[in-house]
This record gives sequence, C-alpha cells and structure tokens, in this order.
Amino acid sequence: MSRRKAWNADPEPLLRVEPGFRLDQVDPDATPGFPGRKIDGLEALAAGASRLAALQERLYAASTAGDQRRVLLVLQAMDTAGKGGIVSHVVGAVDPNGVRYAGFKAPTAEEREHDFLWRIERQLPSAGQLGVFDRSHYEDVLIQRIRAFAAPDEIERRYGAITEFEDGLTAEGTTIVKVMLHISKDEQRERLGERLDRPDKHWKFNPADIDERLLWDRYQDAYQIVFDRTSTPQAPWYVVPANRKWYARLAVQQLLLRALEDMQLSWPKADFDVAEQRQRLAES
Amino acid sequence: MSRRKAWNADPEPLLRVEPGFRLDQVDPDATPGFPGRKIDGLEALAAGASRLAALQERLYAASTAGDQRRVLLVLQAMDTAGKGGIVSHVVGAVDPNGVRYAGFKAPTAEEREHDFLWRIERQLPSAGQLGVFDRSHYEDVLIQRIRAFAAPDEIERRYGAITEFEDGLTAEGTTIVKVMLHISKDEQRERLGERLDRPDKHWKFNPADIDERLLWDRYQDAYQIVFDRTSTPQAPWYVVPANRKWYARLAVQQLLLRALEDMQLSWPKADFDVAEQRQRLAES
Repeated sequence: MSRRKAWNADPEPLLRVEPGFRLDQVDPDATPGFPGRKIDGLEALAAGASRLAALQERLYAASTAGDQRRVLLVLQAMDTAGKGGIVSHVVGAVDPNGVRYAGFKAPTAEEREHDFLWRIERQLPSAGQLGVFDRSHYEDVLIQRIRAFAAPDEIERRYGAITEFEDGLTAEGTTIVKVMLHISKDEQRERLGERLDRPDKHWKFNPADIDERLLWDRYQDAYQIVFDRTSTPQAPWYVVPANRKWYARLAVQQLLLRALEDMQLSWPKADFDVAEQRQRLAES
Repeated sequence: MSRRKAWNADPEPLLRVEPGFRLDQVDPDATPGFPGRKIDGLEALAAGASRLAALQERLYAASTAGDQRRVLLVLQAMDTAGKGGIVSHVVGAVDPNGVRYAGFKAPTAEEREHDFLWRIERQLPSAGQLGVFDRSHYEDVLIQRIRAFAAPDEIERRYGAITEFEDGLTAEGTTIVKVMLHISKDEQRERLGERLDRPDKHWKFNPADIDERLLWDRYQDAYQIVFDRTSTPQAPWYVVPANRKWYARLAVQQLLLRALEDMQLSWPKADFDVAEQRQRLAES
C-alpha cells in the first residue's frame, strides 16, 4: 500500500459553480480536496491515467453496440493557464482513436458568415469519443464581448443560445464538462516571462497575449457573467485553481473519471453465437 | 548506460518495398534490424516515445511560422494484425493536439456517390500534424477488388489515381509512411480465438472477420499488386513483420522517428523584439 496522500474529498462538488459563486473568491493556489503535495499529485495522476484510458475504451465499446453517449471537455482560461498541459497530460492518456480534439482560434472569414455555433457543431465528438474543445463557443461571449467584435444585443442573445445548445447535446447523450483554469495575474506574468526567456518557447508567445493581459479585470468580469448565465444543472462549470499545474491536471482528470464512472459502462454483449463462431474459426 | 540491446541496423531500408519485393517471402515472425528480445523492445519503445513527442512538437512549432510540412501514417493489415495497438502505443505518445486520426470503414451512401478519394481528402492532416489513417484509400483496391464492389476497369484506374494523389501530397510537404502489418494466418486464428474467449473482447469481433479470413490468399495477392503498383520513391510501402506485436510497434515508431528526423526541424525564430516584449510584460 502506498503511503502517498490521495483525495480526501471528491473535488466535483468543491469545484462546481453554483448560484452565488464568486470567481474573485477562488484562490488560484488552492488544491481543494487534495491534501498532498506535488509528488503525491503526480503519482495519483499516473494511476488515474490508466483508469481513464480503460473507461474510455468501455465507452467506445458501448458505442459499437449503439450506445450514443459521449463526453465533451470544454477548456477555457487566460493565456498560459495550462490548457495545453491538460490536453497532453490528461487527455493524452486516452487512445487517440477515442479522442476528438478541436482547437478554436479567431474565426475565419467563412466561419464569420455563419452563426457562432456553426463551427462548433462541426467539431462535436462522435458516440464513444472524448471530445476536447481547446477554447470554444465561450470565446464568443468573452473576447468578443470585451473587444466588441459583436453588438451588445447579439452578445446578450448568445448566452441563451449557448444554454439551449448545450441542453440539446445533453439530451442526446453528451456529458459536458466545462472547465475554467484559474490562475493569478502574477502567475501569468511569470509564465509569459518564461516563454520570453526560452528560445524554444518563443513560438508559443504572441505580443497580443500582453494586449489581452492588460484587460485582465475585464476578462474576470466576463467570466463571472459566463458562470452566472451558463452554469446549469445539466452542464455546470468547474473553476479549477491552476497556479499549481499538477493540481489542475489531477482535478480535471478526476472530473473526467467521475463523468465516465457515472455512466456505469459495461462491455456490450456479443450479438453472435460464440460457439458457432469458434467452430467456424477452427475450420478456417 | 543500459545493457539492453538496441537496433543494430536502421530498419527503414530493411522494411521498404523495392522492385522485385515478394510478400510471400517475408517471415511474419522476424525482427529485422533488432537483435533483442521483447523486454529490450519494450524499453526501446518507451525511450522512443518521448523523442517522437518532442519531434512532433517541433513540427507543430514550425507550422506556426508557416512551415507546411506534415506526416501521414497509412496503416493497412489483415484483421487483428495490430493497427489499433500501433495507434495507442506508438501514436499515443504524441500530444493529442498534434494528431489527426481517421478510421475508414465501409463507405457510407454519401461517400459512395463521390470518387473514392473524396472522403480521404477530407481527413488529411494539417501542417504540423501527424495524420493516421486506420485503413485508407487502399481498401478501394483491396476488399473492393476481391469482393468486386467496383468494376475491374475502375479498380485498374485507381492504382494510377492513388500514385498521382500521393505525388501531389508529397509535393505539398506531406511525408507519407505507408505500413502493412504482416501476420501469419495461424497467428490470426490465435488472435481471433482470444477475442472469442474473452467477453471483454467480444465487441471487437465480427463474424465477417472470418468471411474475410477465408479469402486470405486472395488478400495476399491483392496486397502484392498494391506493392507492385503503388510503392514509389516518394511514398514507399513498408512491410512490417507483426507476429510479435512489440516488434511491429517499435519498427513503426522508428519509421516515424526517421521521417521526422529527416526534416531537420528547428524551433522557429521569434518574429517580435524579445527585449521590447519583456519591457511590456514588466509594466503590465
């Protein structure tokens, strides 16, 4: 038996955004539900990786027998908060054929000609898959609100359009896990500085990252509105303290494990006569 | 320094299909270029995994600076030969955002209304990505030839259409690595038998797998024609002995490593003034 510390409480209710939630009261350094240190967290993450892969395989197997269920992880955050690390260190444990990754950048000219959800719908996971949105339709009420890329009444309309859209996905069998990785402004300065210090990280840096940083408080306010208006019982938001990368990865892994465990997946039954196929195989 | 045995020859030329190649002379139990045993192979695979991930990250970084290069791994094989294991154990080492996986099953009604390459073109990797085709356009000259799903002159036309298509991809910066995993008919019986023995593997079994098995020799002939007609200097085929799963995985990993190493990737240079951005960051 390991002496490492593990979760002492399920983080799901601790991180879930409920009515009355205040982003400015979340400590980005905290590790809710996990009393251990980094070394404990890394060990727990490694143990969870194989469980996550095994559960996703069951989800995929179920889909071959007609089960329509799937999972969609939505990742939002300020720059450098660690979305990329979640994708490689958490989602990376899952078989590539069970993952559908989609990164959303500034919309193209073609995408701008359609409703903001058009490009989103084209990237949804299939039955059996774990979909990952690296940024998402929430950019359309975050940067688009702050930069006034859309008119105020259009922004207003989108909050309702989003909850309706997500309700529809949930009704069709998608479990949506919406995660905001929450870092402090000081932590972001340190991480951007590291990108500037290391020539092998320059490609990850964009001067526009600092332009957005200068609007930090407005982004925090825009996130608060997102939580107030789009955290629903069907598709709640989770705010994950992310100053400690190891905790954020472990917490998101745990949210995905819980989502899959709640599905009570079992291997599909054979739709053929096993003995008959054994006989055919022996004769072949 | 490890005492484990490693490659004693680059497997790339050993596995490449050259004029005069005969599939029926390849021993599916062999391990060309690798004198070690399974335990050596597993250690080499683990070491290669981080190198593969690191090289793909460089490819992706290059794409952010306009480099158009990408890699496409094409996997073909008889059932149970281990395509899935290549995807999870070799490709699985790469960051999910750098992978584009596409599995090709029997074409849908919509797909059948188009040229056979239509659905293929829609799944090509973007610049910076490692694309993986789990089955491919080669099904259109394998099962379609054997089952006569297309007329003989249409099948004939396709070999030329394929090499033209692949020449075009190569010219635009795609390195194509075409792999046929080669198992023996006896090994397939054993693997299908295991799927029948284990209820957690029943979902992977389909009675049609035995129908195809009964056509084993015709498939081997159809593969020989594929090699004769579509193994080109730009996009050669590799036949990988696959009775030993660990060897097949290690060999495909090595082919991908070599493809990426040949690109001589370097980190893109900053297109901004680093000192100026440091100053902006300090003031933010």
